[in-house]
Amino acid sequence: MNVLWISAHPEPRSLNGALRDEGVDALRALGHEVRESDLYAMRWNPVVGHEDYAADPNERFFVGPRSEQAFTEQTLSADIVAEQEKLRWADAVIIQFPLWWYGMPAILKGWFDRVFVKGFGYGTRAADGRVRRYGEGVLEGKRAMVLVTAGGPEPTFGPRGVNGAMDELLFGLQHGALWYTGMSVLPPLAVYGANRVSDDHYAQAVAELRDRLKTWEVTEPLPFRAQHGSDYDEDLVLRPEIAPGVTGLRAHLADG
Amino acid sequence: MNVLWISAHPEPRSLNGALRDEGVDALRALGHEVRESDLYAMRWNPVVGHEDYAADPNERFFVGPRSEQAFTEQTLSADIVAEQEKLRWADAVIIQFPLWWYGMPAILKGWFDRVFVKGFGYGTRAADGRVRRYGEGVLEGKRAMVLVTAGGPEPTFGPRGVNGAMDELLFGLQHGALWYTGMSVLPPLAVYGANRVSDDHYAQAVAELRDRLKTWEVTEPLPFRAQHGSDYDEDLVLRPEIAPGVTGLRAHLADG
Repeated sequence: MNVLWISAHPEPRSLNGALRDEGVDALRALGHEVRESDLYAMRWNPVVGHEDYAADPNERFFVGPRSEQAFTEQTLSADIVAEQEKLRWADAVIIQFPLWWYGMPAILKGWFDRVFVKGFGYGTRAADGRVRRYGEGVLEGKRAMVLVTAGGPEPTFGPRGVNGAMDELLFGLQHGALWYTGMSVLPPLAVYGANRVSDDHYAQAVAELRDRLKTWEVTEPLPFRAQHGSDYDEDLVLRPEIAPGVTGLRAHLADG
Repeated sequence: MNVLWISAHPEPRSLNGALRDEGVDALRALGHEVRESDLYAMRWNPVVGHEDYAADPNERFFVGPRSEQAFTEQTLSADIVAEQEKLRWADAVIIQFPLWWYGMPAILKGWFDRVFVKGFGYGTRAADGRVRRYGEGVLEGKRAMVLVTAGGPEPTFGPRGVNGAMDELLFGLQHGALWYTGMSVLPPLAVYGANRVSDDHYAQAVAELRDRLKTWEVTEPLPFRAQHGSDYDEDLVLRPEIAPGVTGLRAHLADG
């Protein structure tokens, strides 16, 4: 299996750095090929700008159309093209980050902003003309898993914890970016209390990570609902008979 | 009233740029002082790094402690200090952005990552020793409002829309960053179908924006629950008698 490991921590000598090294070693020991996008080490530019699309700075800059044109005409910035090629190569993708202000660090958010251009991340169509998204797209058939560290203790990220449930905080990423582009999303692995991890806690986190990587291919993905099918109506709203009365992010899980 | 208007669109000749100009004009016509953080125009750096904290690059970089030390010792980068001063000056803050991949553009996410350092954005304590957060903090008493544009049509961001409900997609920002630091969060103003706004739709959006800015001071904020009080237990989990049985982000709204 080809695995792309994306990480976004400024310090290699951190918990994030240690977990990544353990994970990459474990994957290689299992016989997988691993490539990395260590965004800090790469000094990744996270800011969308016309420079990436060979767009005329004197013309009004429409992000979607200009990015699609550059994608089609193969004039996208080389660093974006390189990441798209890694994604095409990969069978599986790990997205690893410390939770900052309840989301991805900017350097990682901007990886999605810049790499998922129109024509690649969105705006592609199936033979019948429908837009491919939420379960189908250029990354269809690949598997993704989020590996996240959070400073707060686990209960604060539980179903009624003050910070909001982790799966809901990750919805925009897991559903809105990974599932949107067609990837199957495995349950995330979260390490809580990340500012004060004991040796035992660390050993347990590594063991869990190794177990996840070993069972990657047979793990059941999150049951997000497909756009193409009978769950959503023509306005892309859940039909009344689907999860009747349920609102919120859980309505979009087939077991929600 | 002093208003800080933060915006994050690469193109001033965009819908976002037009709405900002209308909004700033309206505020000034109402007699308010306005300062701006136009992040693209400022070429804002969104990436947290040791350089901001005068930290020794040879030492292991702990983001929280190093940022707190630099804040206390007044060695933070000048661009961060300038934003903190604008926030202190402001009575009200607008956070305006196009929704990209169901969240803030990286340049704006990194404004929070870099400006909300430990000692300013989090990690401050009240006289009794409790951590000030969720309803209390350095920005307590200020008002904030999100102004967001989204390409998808409104129903897709409704309670059962495929993209997830807008208030839930904004939870990490509105609850996790704005309310966390003590700000009162007004209901967001969202403009949908932003890629194909008709003249009528634009006029309606401007009218709504002007109305919001006119009634800013008397508008009821979102009823997020205070950490300090009786709603959460000592683990910061909602007590069983509070919104019994409710899970998900709505449990954290007092009318949820």
